[in-house]
Amino acid sequence: MASRSDTYQRILESARDLIYASSYADVGVAAICERANVKKGSFYHFFTSKQELTISVLDTYFVDMKEQILDHAFNSGLKPMERLNKFYTMVIDMQSSIFEQTGHVLGCPFGNLALELATRDEPIRKKVDQVFTRLQTLIKVTLDEAMASGDLEQIDTGATARALIAYFEGAVLLAKAHNDPSILKQLLPAAAQIRILPSNQIN
Amino acid sequence: MASRSDTYQRILESARDLIYASSYADVGVAAICERANVKKGSFYHFFTSKQELTISVLDTYFVDMKEQILDHAFNSGLKPMERLNKFYTMVIDMQSSIFEQTGHVLGCPFGNLALELATRDEPIRKKVDQVFTRLQTLIKVTLDEAMASGDLEQIDTGATARALIAYFEGAVLLAKAHNDPSILKQLLPAAAQIRILPSNQIN
Repeated sequence: MASRSDTYQRILESARDLIYASSYADVGVAAICERANVKKGSFYHFFTSKQELTISVLDTYFVDMKEQILDHAFNSGLKPMERLNKFYTMVIDMQSSIFEQTGHVLGCPFGNLALELATRDEPIRKKVDQVFTRLQTLIKVTLDEAMASGDLEQIDTGATARALIAYFEGAVLLAKAHNDPSILKQLLPAAAQIRILPSNQIN
Repeated sequence: MASRSDTYQRILESARDLIYASSYADVGVAAICERANVKKGSFYHFFTSKQELTISVLDTYFVDMKEQILDHAFNSGLKPMERLNKFYTMVIDMQSSIFEQTGHVLGCPFGNLALELATRDEPIRKKVDQVFTRLQTLIKVTLDEAMASGDLEQIDTGATARALIAYFEGAVLLAKAHNDPSILKQLLPAAAQIRILPSNQIN
């Protein structure tokens, strides 16, 4: 017999797969329970609501993204600017592989939920916001290191990190809208050109 | 008594306002009819489904965006690269004004629906795709003109136009995720740095 924690894990993974493949609103608790092969009672034993579950789902996305992509790209022994390229390459490979398996570009789970829910679900918006802020810090530290080693001119590393995330999220959005992962390959290399100068250098 | 076309228009505008403020899935036909003050029978006289209505809504968004922003920015007598800046400035003003009125960054209606629906509603995905393609053509023509007049080096204007849309959509996504329109002001000026070279110049 499955342990409680198996059940918890199955609910989490079912919700995650279903929401990523369609949308938050499109996936009900009944469908999550059916896919996880658990009764509704078990669901409400672990989660008070689909919203609470989704916040846990976002946490697991971040942990997996960290283990499967961020740690490899950013703790890789590569030079700082090469780490960013490694990050983009890994994302292109992942989105292409998902496209081959499903016929769809599924995009970024954080960006998806941000645009679907930001105006009407403040706890989920805040959770997505936190993820973008953590990613921004990681990229900022990388840019700081590149600047310290002389590989990068003087820039506003915080604002540039944010600009890099914006460009990345937008490229993923277009790839999803056109349902074509090759758009990522076409667009992401140009991220290397994006710089925001320290504000005292802007006239 | 209101004419048929008044009713049609009211349904369209109600759907548009409601979907833009939350999401496609969150807005049912009943809510659209209630806001438009029409009976359900009238709705189904004009539209076979919420999907069909949403495709009409996307058409009206494009017409309005064209009349209120694109025509002013791109047929403005400005030099080509200044037209792009005028476009960004007008969008920043519009998103800031919506934020002041509603307390929310509502973002780009096309980007919102792309991320919510692209994997599960092919007609809506295709309509959004068409809008991005039209916008890309408009920006490409502008970049071609700048290149012809010597204001821009030799670039792949089609791919660069797409990169500019990606950066724009991503900046709007982050502004929505953080619920802070000032992010657009911080990020959009850096769009001027994004160039994609003709592929024969890429090694």
